[in-house]
Amino acid sequence: MHVDLAPYRTFINRLAIESGDFIRPHFASDALAVEHKSDDSPVTLADRGAEELLRRLIAQTYPGHGVIGEELGNDRPDAEFVWVLDPIDGTKSFITAVPLFGTLIALMHRGKPVLGAIHQPILNQLLVGDGNTTTLNDRPVRLRPCADLATATLLTSDPLNPAKYQNGAAYDALASRVRLTRTWGDAYGYLLLATGRADIMCDPIMNPWDLMALIPVVRGAGGIITDWQGNDPVNGESIVAAGPDLHGTVIAALNP
Amino acid sequence: MHVDLAPYRTFINRLAIESGDFIRPHFASDALAVEHKSDDSPVTLADRGAEELLRRLIAQTYPGHGVIGEELGNDRPDAEFVWVLDPIDGTKSFITAVPLFGTLIALMHRGKPVLGAIHQPILNQLLVGDGNTTTLNDRPVRLRPCADLATATLLTSDPLNPAKYQNGAAYDALASRVRLTRTWGDAYGYLLLATGRADIMCDPIMNPWDLMALIPVVRGAGGIITDWQGNDPVNGESIVAAGPDLHGTVIAALNP
Repeated sequence: MHVDLAPYRTFINRLAIESGDFIRPHFASDALAVEHKSDDSPVTLADRGAEELLRRLIAQTYPGHGVIGEELGNDRPDAEFVWVLDPIDGTKSFITAVPLFGTLIALMHRGKPVLGAIHQPILNQLLVGDGNTTTLNDRPVRLRPCADLATATLLTSDPLNPAKYQNGAAYDALASRVRLTRTWGDAYGYLLLATGRADIMCDPIMNPWDLMALIPVVRGAGGIITDWQGNDPVNGESIVAAGPDLHGTVIAALNP
Repeated sequence: MHVDLAPYRTFINRLAIESGDFIRPHFASDALAVEHKSDDSPVTLADRGAEELLRRLIAQTYPGHGVIGEELGNDRPDAEFVWVLDPIDGTKSFITAVPLFGTLIALMHRGKPVLGAIHQPILNQLLVGDGNTTTLNDRPVRLRPCADLATATLLTSDPLNPAKYQNGAAYDALASRVRLTRTWGDAYGYLLLATGRADIMCDPIMNPWDLMALIPVVRGAGGIITDWQGNDPVNGESIVAAGPDLHGTVIAALNP
């Protein structure tokens, strides 16, 4: 079955605008209270409120669709169409007043991510990909060419996670071979990759709500996205994204 | 001699507004060419043009003052009043479309920094400090209380520099003891520290144009700023900034 994505693209624009308007006043606000969840990750009323708002808009517009969200759980996860939501990917960045977080929105059709979006509401950047094309504020974008680690920019979200969840020594060796390495991560790291400002993004741990939106975005911009070992990322718990001339080198370096 | 800083504060506001207006259109612009200087650090016409603009405004307004700038050298560095300029501190961040860079402006009087400013022109945040008071967009700010490494956020500009220029193992051991560590560095890291969003900022190498503006900003916000070994930072080549309840612990950890 062919899915006409055009109406969903329009709808994603609306989701991004309305959730962005909700999140923006809480950014760098001294009044925002931070709680810690059972896994010690932080959460705020901006995370919960943005997810409620997204769920309400989806239920109004597509009452038959399912929803999976980071903060408020699963609602009909086996529906033909399911939205996967992370209202604020990078809450640590958000609560530190660093605008590298983003809202992740994916549309799954029969278990496959067919549309993904990364929205950075402070910088007003909306990236939408369908696996074939990725646009930033409606203008097509691509990864930049990069075939040599010595000229590459490598990003990761948390500098301590490679050692914690994968092979830290291999990651450090990779980091010592690139031109630039930074923790400009979370959602914005993938936006930088897909728009040709960075070359490699590695994240050792990922949940479904962190993951699904990234796949059509990275592929639509001409990139390769796998787990840490080079396998299909959909069922994995890690992400390695890079261009076709570099991805194999990165996977080899991370798995010596 | 008492120096009345009020007119210089007003003038710094003007420098920030005009340099910000110049820099902003070049941010995330595909048309911006990047050159590499003799030390392989990147530079763009935004860096050079912003410094030219700042120097022109200073020469028009205070023709007797000296200027020291990253891109265009020294002009009467022995004058009673000397402006120290880094038009874009964090050029790597700037050219990657990451809004963590900043314009650093210091006013020196008889060799001492009496006024410092950090301006982030994409987020429109202007931090100005005189050693007694620091304001963010004219509102007073302070470091947040933090006496325990286990609850601290630690920032540095380049994750590879502690090992390159100081003691990498000691830095890594410190990083493993804090709640959060990130390379949200360059100018914005000090802004986060002074506004109570981060607790420790470490930079192993610093030039005068990276350094002078930070001293009155951090002290004005209630922080302690020294070099890596705990000495006066003015003549050092590194920075460790933190609140009074944490700074000694950090220096001890970095120099085991």
